Amino acid sequence: MSFHFDVLDPLLEKAAELRAVFHLDAVDRDKQGGRPLEQIRILKESGLPSAQIAKAYGGQGASWLTILRIVREFAKTDGSLAHLFGYHHLPLNLILFRGSSAQKEKWLSGSAAGNWIWSNSGNAMSKTSTGERIKGGWTINGSRPFSSGSHIADYIQISFENSAGERLTAAVPADRPGIVIVDDWDGIGQRQTGSGTVHFHDLRIDDDEMISAPSVPLTPYTSLTSLLQQSVLLNVFVGSAQGILEEGREYTVGSSRPWIYSGVERHIDDPWIKRQYGELYIRTLAAAELADKAARSLDAAYIQGPSLSHADRGAAAIDIATANLYAGEVGLAVSSEVFEVMGARSATQANGFDRFWRNVRTHTLHNPAEYKKRTVGAFVLTGEFPVPAIYR
Amino acid sequence: MSFHFDVLDPLLEKAAELRAVFHLDAVDRDKQGGRPLEQIRILKESGLPSAQIAKAYGGQGASWLTILRIVREFAKTDGSLAHLFGYHHLPLNLILFRGSSAQKEKWLSGSAAGNWIWSNSGNAMSKTSTGERIKGGWTINGSRPFSSGSHIADYIQISFENSAGERLTAAVPADRPGIVIVDDWDGIGQRQTGSGTVHFHDLRIDDDEMISAPSVPLTPYTSLTSLLQQSVLLNVFVGSAQGILEEGREYTVGSSRPWIYSGVERHIDDPWIKRQYGELYIRTLAAAELADKAARSLDAAYIQGPSLSHADRGAAAIDIATANLYAGEVGLAVSSEVFEVMGARSATQANGFDRFWRNVRTHTLHNPAEYKKRTVGAFVLTGEFPVPAIYR
Amino acid sequence: MSFHFDVLDPLLEKAAELRAVFHLDAVDRDKQGGRPLEQIRILKESGLPSAQIAKAYGGQGASWLTILRIVREFAKTDGSLAHLFGYHHLPLNLILFRGSSAQKEKWLSGSAAGNWIWSNSGNAMSKTSTGERIKGGWTINGSRPFSSGSHIADYIQISFENSAGERLTAAVPADRPGIVIVDDWDGIGQRQTGSGTVHFHDLRIDDDEMISAPSVPLTPYTSLTSLLQQSVLLNVFVGSAQGILEEGREYTVGSSRPWIYSGVERHIDDPWIKRQYGELYIRTLAAAELADKAARSLDAAYIQGPSLSHADRGAAAIDIATANLYAGEVGLAVSSEVFEVMGARSATQANGFDRFWRNVRTHTLHNPAEYKKRTVGAFVLTGEFPVPAIYR
Amino acid sequence: MSFHFDVLDPLLEKAAELRAVFHLDAVDRDKQGGRPLEQIRILKESGLPSAQIAKAYGGQGASWLTILRIVREFAKTDGSLAHLFGYHHLPLNLILFRGSSAQKEKWLSGSAAGNWIWSNSGNAMSKTSTGERIKGGWTINGSRPFSSGSHIADYIQISFENSAGERLTAAVPADRPGIVIVDDWDGIGQRQTGSGTVHFHDLRIDDDEMISAPSVPLTPYTSLTSLLQQSVLLNVFVGSAQGILEEGREYTVGSSRPWIYSGVERHIDDPWIKRQYGELYIRTLAAAELADKAARSLDAAYIQGPSLSHADRGAAAIDIATANLYAGEVGLAVSSEVFEVMGARSATQANGFDRFWRNVRTHTLHNPAEYKKRTVGAFVLTGEFPVPAIYR
Repeated sequence: MSFHFDVLDPLLEKAAELRAVFHLDAVDRDKQGGRPLEQIRILKESGLPSAQIAKAYGGQGASWLTILRIVREFAKTDGSLAHLFGYHHLPLNLILFRGSSAQKEKWLSGSAAGNWIWSNSGNAMSKTSTGERIKGGWTINGSRPFSSGSHIADYIQISFENSAGERLTAAVPADRPGIVIVDDWDGIGQRQTGSGTVHFHDLRIDDDEMISAPSVPLTPYTSLTSLLQQSVLLNVFVGSAQGILEEGREYTVGSSRPWIYSGVERHIDDPWIKRQYGELYIRTLAAAELADKAARSLDAAYIQGPSLSHADRGAAAIDIATANLYAGEVGLAVSSEVFEVMGARSATQANGFDRFWRNVRTHTLHNPAEYKKRTVGAFVLTGEFPVPAIYR
Repeated sequence: MSFHFDVLDPLLEKAAELRAVFHLDAVDRDKQGGRPLEQIRILKESGLPSAQIAKAYGGQGASWLTILRIVREFAKTDGSLAHLFGYHHLPLNLILFRGSSAQKEKWLSGSAAGNWIWSNSGNAMSKTSTGERIKGGWTINGSRPFSSGSHIADYIQISFENSAGERLTAAVPADRPGIVIVDDWDGIGQRQTGSGTVHFHDLRIDDDEMISAPSVPLTPYTSLTSLLQQSVLLNVFVGSAQGILEEGREYTVGSSRPWIYSGVERHIDDPWIKRQYGELYIRTLAAAELADKAARSLDAAYIQGPSLSHADRGAAAIDIATANLYAGEVGLAVSSEVFEVMGARSATQANGFDRFWRNVRTHTLHNPAEYKKRTVGAFVLTGEFPVPAIYR
Repeated sequence: MSFHFDVLDPLLEKAAELRAVFHLDAVDRDKQGGRPLEQIRILKESGLPSAQIAKAYGGQGASWLTILRIVREFAKTDGSLAHLFGYHHLPLNLILFRGSSAQKEKWLSGSAAGNWIWSNSGNAMSKTSTGERIKGGWTINGSRPFSSGSHIADYIQISFENSAGERLTAAVPADRPGIVIVDDWDGIGQRQTGSGTVHFHDLRIDDDEMISAPSVPLTPYTSLTSLLQQSVLLNVFVGSAQGILEEGREYTVGSSRPWIYSGVERHIDDPWIKRQYGELYIRTLAAAELADKAARSLDAAYIQGPSLSHADRGAAAIDIATANLYAGEVGLAVSSEVFEVMGARSATQANGFDRFWRNVRTHTLHNPAEYKKRTVGAFVLTGEFPVPAIYR
Repeated sequence: MSFHFDVLDPLLEKAAELRAVFHLDAVDRDKQGGRPLEQIRILKESGLPSAQIAKAYGGQGASWLTILRIVREFAKTDGSLAHLFGYHHLPLNLILFRGSSAQKEKWLSGSAAGNWIWSNSGNAMSKTSTGERIKGGWTINGSRPFSSGSHIADYIQISFENSAGERLTAAVPADRPGIVIVDDWDGIGQRQTGSGTVHFHDLRIDDDEMISAPSVPLTPYTSLTSLLQQSVLLNVFVGSAQGILEEGREYTVGSSRPWIYSGVERHIDDPWIKRQYGELYIRTLAAAELADKAARSLDAAYIQGPSLSHADRGAAAIDIATANLYAGEVGLAVSSEVFEVMGARSATQANGFDRFWRNVRTHTLHNPAEYKKRTVGAFVLTGEFPVPAIYR
């Protein structure tokens, strides 16, 4: 059994190589938290950060199916790097959805050429940074929590409120004076995502760095950002389930001992062990199938561009919510239950198998399953699609 | 929401039409049990019984994906007809796998031309009918339980043991003297499958009606019969989940009343109702995706013909076992939990919504989930595929 | 293993005897529906209908723990008789809570002496019967659904709305002219509870038959009726789980065959069979423990009489809701999952094992688990007890 | 809602006081691992370590119900201290069960007077320490894993194999030369239990320190040690569920924010939040009820002394296995699911809420649920009790 993708795709092959490298010290880096600088260097070197950028801007025009499978591949050993790689695409596509031609040319082409890593510092639920209008731009002060990736990014998408309380968004180089990354991320999981606070001290933003204006209404197309975010998370969950299942299998086959009353010589010959691996596999496979279906729906919506209809956006939203919900449940279950078939000696910090549960537990909380289920259920009952908005 | 297939396929369209007809009295026929003679007549008229037969024999060469989706479509309202239609393909393909050229010509071409319905009376776990060798054939006495479909079939595949206790198989017209169909099927579900006893009183079988010989070893290809059986059942389960979810939704939208403490005017506006329909849908969709994946694996194995390798047969077996296990669990859960969102007034015999749970509960028992899970788990742990045999 | 009560109590011994009698044709009577007249005759003969009536009125003053364990005992084989016996106590205690001294003397003493069976026809969610004020009483017309027990009762508690839409309640002999019992109960389970419609055609009620007046506010004590109802249902669920577990065990030990690939001679030696019976037992035992705890809380509240405080009533309400929720889930799970360890041949109408699932499924719908869980959760979060009202 | 025991018991009151002290730095100590020296000092000062010792030896003769509720109380905030306190009773009672009068006098009286803490280093699944017979005693070399408590104990019960491979047991002061405690415990949970390796370097043991001889057969009474161990663990699980539920409730009420689409001002007014706290509470209450029942069964067996019958020992074993299984499942579920109602900001290392899941996950692995369930199921099916042995 293996969750290797049964397709020939050089990007997925490259991702599998990176995963092997990330795996070498994934357990240690989980303990340390902080910044996976060397891994990000390798990631940039691989060219994967520019894979999704359209060929018109010098990228490779990779599909979401491929990109999200790369997220999944990384998450098999390192949910943080999977998350960072996945979230990198949110600001990139916000530029595509809302930026001016000049901005696209500058930032997308620049990213394609330099494999820049993007992050965001603009949590929509916190209105804790404000902008003061100045000539030719804005001066930003305050801070923003949950700024995943800002600690390793080349560029940061930041949000702030204007004096009317409206949310505005801009893109700036991460090394601009006035940006202070606090490194205060203290999550129980996703330890190297740097999802902590970014402070802004008289941060200067020029008008041509502004991406969205409050007056521009959200369209089905420009609201795809929410679906990208949900898609990244769900593939972190699926990859986590696949990763712990593969690590667990290896441990069980190589290290677990039969129970004293089992009467078998090899632990894997205990009927119970077979049954439980069967159970874990079934759900993990179902999660992967739903994730692939959701990625294809996202691709089908995305390629329609600005003319994307509410219904087609909605169909993708339902598929993605469905896959996200299922993946979250499976990720939690598999990463907890697998210990039962590995046995008491597996549950050490040195083995670090618990990082999968901590990773999934941490990032399943950012969008309550309850509300996503209601969204799916409303569609089932009435056929209505969710009103595009953050998290849905 | 609808589980209509998003493909254009005249066979599926035809199946949807039949489903609508079957639906008219599905609740009544569930109560009556017995023989769905009129429905079988319509089914034969539709040409679907010959759809899967190869074009070389005058059939339409439909894929298993299509055939199994038809099973699913029927199961949305009537698990018995779904089962009868699905199981009909087991004897047909046993002839293909093991019959002589003359037998194939006779029975497959005959079936293609006449849309004959096939059934079997040869439960492998019961050795209750025996054959006495006579000149040019056999005389069969005894009986066989679980003879699904024999009550409405044109042809019956029967099994019996010879004096050495070996199992032999033959095909005979259902109206041959010596065959007595008892109509003693008393299951709590799948009420019109006629899965009761067939008695044999000096039943005469000619040598050229004999299909398999005990001396011919099972090959990966000829053992596909087990996978066909498992595939039919799993699609009955998936269709049952889809069917009760659609019926439940219709009832909830049209008839359910809001709870007295809900504070909402419409039952479907209660957040709980939305959430639960979301939950039911997610699992049902996952089951359908796994079922499609399994059907494609079956097609990929089947088209390889007699050269099918153990590994390729095994890969299909694992996909089918996985889908079967998941579908069984989902079928049971959805058909029970849906009552909670329909409400107290829905649980009447007149509504007949309970037939779905009874149907799935009945036919999930014929191959214990425990053993299928062990088979899947053994594959996960060691990569080994199941040894081809009945039920696996 | 047995769920016999480990206490010496002649009432429980008597109940066990009755259960054995009810068991003789429980499967047949489930199929027939209708009226268990002979069983009610035996029940009255046993004296159990008067057991709970206070000694002051000639009863035996049995505790709720005992009464509810009798409900549980009957439900081990016949959920309908359990329900009828349990619900009989609701009108009796409504008289105690709200009746005049003369009414108590008349009806409680009469019941104690004659072992009258009481029922109710006053579903609070339906306002479908109305009363017209006449000299010295009322004339009632209309109907009321869900009138469990009216088909076998000596006395019926009826409800109707006055011209102001207020609900009033009275007690009348079941044979009074103007009462027409329709026998239209069509539930998928609880088939002999007669929970159908009662019609009122110019039914005459005298003023001294009126029990409650809309102007009399509900107190913690008088609102105990809701808790009695919840208690009866939960013990039907617990008894159903215990009953199917005992029947399943007997079938598994005596009739089930080992699976063909099990390698064991006796089905019960398959590790899987042991494990699953372990699982089913654990939950059933937990349900019984919570049921006992809830019954003791009810007793503790009940004996305080009219001075019962909101807090003490609330504590019992939470224990009862908790036990009810858990029992409902366990009843459904055990009555469905037990088939897996009995095997395919168990699922016949002749065996009738499915009646347990149908019984529990039917009567878990009458008070949504969702709302009871919210009530419990509100208490957990804030310590607040539910406002006394129907169903809580 | 509170899981305070509704009994007046000075020992439980004392335990509650200690829990409050342990709570002050429970999160920090979980991070550090190592030795809770100050807490053990306080524990000894409290007199609780001698509470269970019989009055004849100067103890207080506390019941197992009380002792195990103390374990539960500690586990509400600190699973390690709960475990250490609970396991302390295993060697103490091994002396009672198997020691000579002189040994009982010496060690039980000494413990009662000095509130000595006992631990063990004799994992039965590892045969990694051996004894060489010398004049008047033994010389021990080797090591033993999973030596919980040895790092803070006054006395250690050690096991070793003799030249015939038989296991022998002795008791020695923890500071005896030749005992080296490695502090290599690296579990993902139960971080301060010191469940690591103890090395023996020419450790000298005198004959009068030997407790059990291989030639003395196990009796129902002397095998109660297994039930004590299972009882301690199950109460750690129950207390963990209660503890995280109380901490979660406090966080939810005080810190959680309503979801952006909830439409409520207070998070606790979201129906979903109420429902989920209801769900978590129901299972936690059921676990506590089963734990109390099991403790009472243990008391009933224990007081019978050496004449304890196989059947009475068996009845306690089944109750304890049942409670253990249920408690393990509930502990895992509650400690994971509670995050969903606390929200994304709760999942920090500073809050340390994840220690409950890590604690329960770690110690549910030491005796596979699968085998305990088979034991319970075998009893259900045939009435047979487990053969007394380690872990059952």
